[in-house]
Amino acid sequence: MPQIAPPAVILMDPQLAENIGAAARVMANFGLDDLRIVRPRDGWPQERAWAAASGADWPLDNARICGTVDEAVADLQYILAATARPRETQLPVYTPRQAMPELRKASGEGLKTAIMFGPERAGLETSDIALTHGILTVPVDERFRSLNLAQSVAVCAYEWRAQLLDAPREAFHHNIDPPVDGQAMLGLYEQLEAELDDAGFFHPPEKKPSMQRNLRIALGRARFTDQELRTFRGVVTALSKGRGRVLAKRAAALAAEAAKAGE
Amino acid sequence: MPQIAPPAVILMDPQLAENIGAAARVMANFGLDDLRIVRPRDGWPQERAWAAASGADWPLDNARICGTVDEAVADLQYILAATARPRETQLPVYTPRQAMPELRKASGEGLKTAIMFGPERAGLETSDIALTHGILTVPVDERFRSLNLAQSVAVCAYEWRAQLLDAPREAFHHNIDPPVDGQAMLGLYEQLEAELDDAGFFHPPEKKPSMQRNLRIALGRARFTDQELRTFRGVVTALSKGRGRVLAKRAAALAAEAAKAGE
Repeated sequence: MPQIAPPAVILMDPQLAENIGAAARVMANFGLDDLRIVRPRDGWPQERAWAAASGADWPLDNARICGTVDEAVADLQYILAATARPRETQLPVYTPRQAMPELRKASGEGLKTAIMFGPERAGLETSDIALTHGILTVPVDERFRSLNLAQSVAVCAYEWRAQLLDAPREAFHHNIDPPVDGQAMLGLYEQLEAELDDAGFFHPPEKKPSMQRNLRIALGRARFTDQELRTFRGVVTALSKGRGRVLAKRAAALAAEAAKAGE
Repeated sequence: MPQIAPPAVILMDPQLAENIGAAARVMANFGLDDLRIVRPRDGWPQERAWAAASGADWPLDNARICGTVDEAVADLQYILAATARPRETQLPVYTPRQAMPELRKASGEGLKTAIMFGPERAGLETSDIALTHGILTVPVDERFRSLNLAQSVAVCAYEWRAQLLDAPREAFHHNIDPPVDGQAMLGLYEQLEAELDDAGFFHPPEKKPSMQRNLRIALGRARFTDQELRTFRGVVTALSKGRGRVLAKRAAALAAEAAKAGE
């Protein structure tokens, strides 16, 4: 099976260099690099494109500048047309999520693939769409359909990468150390409850069992790690007894005051 | 079942008005409208934001401008932090695709939700992340990780809408009372931290910020209900008052000793 290659990006008649640069940047973010620009309105190269790319120079440096759409698609075998308004064509219509497996499958079969984007205001010409093999429509809200060109590239590029990575059930909580065991939590509960007993917290006494239960449920939900458990044991100690030095200092001050008063 | 509401978007210290406007535009594209801007670098309102929004004025017109992160999260109950570098925090890490069902589920349970984005260059401060309940990381290519702020909002907003359209009708469970909002949690944190300060817990002093953050993350994970929050405020009060008594007892003993020595 051939290596899976990301789709090329074809920008038809783009108007703003900033959008071309922003598109290049987001292509780089998601591992795409083959950029083809058909009739950029303000000529090429344009410095503002490189500025907007913020360092993602390679799609711009290697961009293929084409005078016609025919040139841009010449070596391609499977192309999707990104358009907000699916036209009356006999082409399948995909959301980005549905489209990416199609592109991946085509690439896996050794085909060269691309996504074609229209100019900022007008969108793709029907004659350009006629050179593609499917319609890709980003599911925008009816109330505000006007998607920026680079944002449209962003969504498609993101989806390409997301579906490539989609190893489902990928470690959700890999950042989190494992929670401590029940014995350790019980140690914290017992320490806390003894201090609270001491402080007269469990009042009236007949409510103590349910108060204890509620405290344990709430704290248990946090699923403390070992480090956190030790921190919270320290918190309980500090709150109830203070830290030795501070406490000793303050007690000494109080004692001095008392001694003075007693003079 | 409550209506599913899209997450709010919190922009922390955004630098460029163009990015704020582009974020508003793409929010509108995908049906989001609650925008909160914390300390926009160049003040507010800024014309360039409206220009960049290309007609998606309503998120900007109704944007809440906040002086602090506390203000921005005050009414929220479930927040994800968008960051390219998952830190060493004890928070779950989600891709946008994994995150959206969590946001939808929270909203279905009646919680107010948000996604928090950091400033253009620096990303989110760890102290801001400590107020959230999970990390959202866009799966960018290692070779070019720098994702534009509005593109990052685009990917998240797109995923929100894409999963909403994909989502089967689900039943939500109501066994657990809803968690309190950010303001209530901040109240607990501040009370606890003041008492711990008093008790000399934050030692050495330069470690205080990270100790605070870790405490907040661990307690935040418990997602206290209103009743539980009141219980824990009571716990902190009871334990600290107890400390007063211990202190008084010890001071009395020292005073008695001093008096004896002075006899």
